[in-house]
Amino acid sequence: MKNLLAMGIKVEGNRLFILDQRQLPAKEIWELITHPQQMISAIQNLSVRGAPLIGVAAALSLATFCEAEAPLNEFIFFADALRTSRPTAVNLMSAIDRLLVASKKNFPHEVIATAENLFEEDVKLCEQLAEMGNQFIAPGDRVLTHCNTGGLATVGNGTALGVIRKAHADGKKIHVFVAETRPLYQGARLTTWELEKLKIPFTLFADSMAASLMREKKINKIFVGADRIAANGDAANKIGTYSLAILAKFHKIPFYVVAPRTTVAAQTPTGADIPIEFRNETEILGERKFISGTAYNPAFDVTPRELITELIVV
Amino acid sequence: MKNLLAMGIKVEGNRLFILDQRQLPAKEIWELITHPQQMISAIQNLSVRGAPLIGVAAALSLATFCEAEAPLNEFIFFADALRTSRPTAVNLMSAIDRLLVASKKNFPHEVIATAENLFEEDVKLCEQLAEMGNQFIAPGDRVLTHCNTGGLATVGNGTALGVIRKAHADGKKIHVFVAETRPLYQGARLTTWELEKLKIPFTLFADSMAASLMREKKINKIFVGADRIAANGDAANKIGTYSLAILAKFHKIPFYVVAPRTTVAAQTPTGADIPIEFRNETEILGERKFISGTAYNPAFDVTPRELITELIVV
Repeated sequence: MKNLLAMGIKVEGNRLFILDQRQLPAKEIWELITHPQQMISAIQNLSVRGAPLIGVAAALSLATFCEAEAPLNEFIFFADALRTSRPTAVNLMSAIDRLLVASKKNFPHEVIATAENLFEEDVKLCEQLAEMGNQFIAPGDRVLTHCNTGGLATVGNGTALGVIRKAHADGKKIHVFVAETRPLYQGARLTTWELEKLKIPFTLFADSMAASLMREKKINKIFVGADRIAANGDAANKIGTYSLAILAKFHKIPFYVVAPRTTVAAQTPTGADIPIEFRNETEILGERKFISGTAYNPAFDVTPRELITELIVV
Repeated sequence: MKNLLAMGIKVEGNRLFILDQRQLPAKEIWELITHPQQMISAIQNLSVRGAPLIGVAAALSLATFCEAEAPLNEFIFFADALRTSRPTAVNLMSAIDRLLVASKKNFPHEVIATAENLFEEDVKLCEQLAEMGNQFIAPGDRVLTHCNTGGLATVGNGTALGVIRKAHADGKKIHVFVAETRPLYQGARLTTWELEKLKIPFTLFADSMAASLMREKKINKIFVGADRIAANGDAANKIGTYSLAILAKFHKIPFYVVAPRTTVAAQTPTGADIPIEFRNETEILGERKFISGTAYNPAFDVTPRELITELIVV
């Protein structure tokens, strides 16, 4: 298949590699993926994360598997397993569904071509999102963002962070406020890593400080991504997004959700129908054990459409 | 002076010890304090924290200093230095002011007696707060709390956490939801440590998850403490409190602030007049250095009176 290169994934000479995002920013370690079971682990342990990237990465792992002469029945078995490896982001499911359709003719060539197309489409969708979102950014804006929605979350320039990147490249002299995004610090670890490489000025803050930033008028816009947008426009995204949307409404700050159409789930009627992944308590508790205590650890929350100023979707 | 014993401070045979709260829950290390300068460091580095505890601890360090025959001019010098060691909590300032008044007659005996009184008064104020606050808790309540407001934050049973402790002791079978309280994890480190000792059931969560808990109706009341309450009822407390108050209003959940009268600053007209301490960026950034990035790190925020259902003050 084609050589493909993104910030968090690449295909070189038919070999698929992922950047282990768990180890960023301390270490940049590329891992060779030779079997879909490895990709399932990588998606579940968050070596590979970000709704658009997960979809493309799952597709590429199946494509390289097919290219290495896996039979159709094994392709289907691992496609199904990948499809359910994480429950909330719908990009994964829609990418797998496209490969399953493609597998019905001229296997495996159509599967491989479809995976390549998914990659190239995501790059273009990111470009289109950046163009569209950039219209909502004025020179000097101070933009709050949550989690990581950049090159590490997609195979292009990103969704919400792609907009920010475009506005910066256009010379709008914006400043980015990055929510650290507990419990796994995707903001603190990944978004700052991208912004530093791009020389975009930023300020990192603990999630609970967002309301103070708003009250002090240090920020004037919020841009976030999404993991699944329901048919009614409710949007699931990284835990903490719903909180930011309420705080934005209270302070009269516009709140934008930026996502490619692969994140929209027409078959999910409302936010209440989006399955929310709960992750291991150790992400909150560390190694500590309690007799009278436990932890609450949803990976996502749902922001109702009425709290979203604009849904920026292409 | 008298022997005195609290969860985070004690006087034994005229020797003053503090429990180093930075090291909890991993280690319980008591440190001997022989000079007010050590107490200033302990307050600034948060070995000793919690508005009521800071006030009493500062007073006890001056009292033991006087008992060890420090002259009046040195007492006054270190009283002034202690008074300004942290800017937001007013208990520190009011405690020092009482000692300065006491130093004007029968030095040092009146200073020592006043410090002892401050300790005993705080124990009683906590008891009264617990009685009063307990009236607002119904059997089966699921109470969210932030930071640490218990035995470690006072020399009694606590403020907001003292109310929770009282309700539990009364057999109300409550469940406590503890906000981890980034960046220094006073909720995750200290409040869970107290609740585990008391066998009070709790659930720890990352600060950004509070809105989800409210939306899912997993909590039905919020109790927090305060570091300074202005004359108009606006309350400064640990960063993140203001955010919780807005989220509570949005979800129609009652929001209670519990504090002794030593936290009320009649001379501070409104919340806007409360000085907010900004702490070192390393609390957010760790050892990382950026060229294009910095951090925002206020230790407190101000919740306006209109977002507080009841101010519970005695």
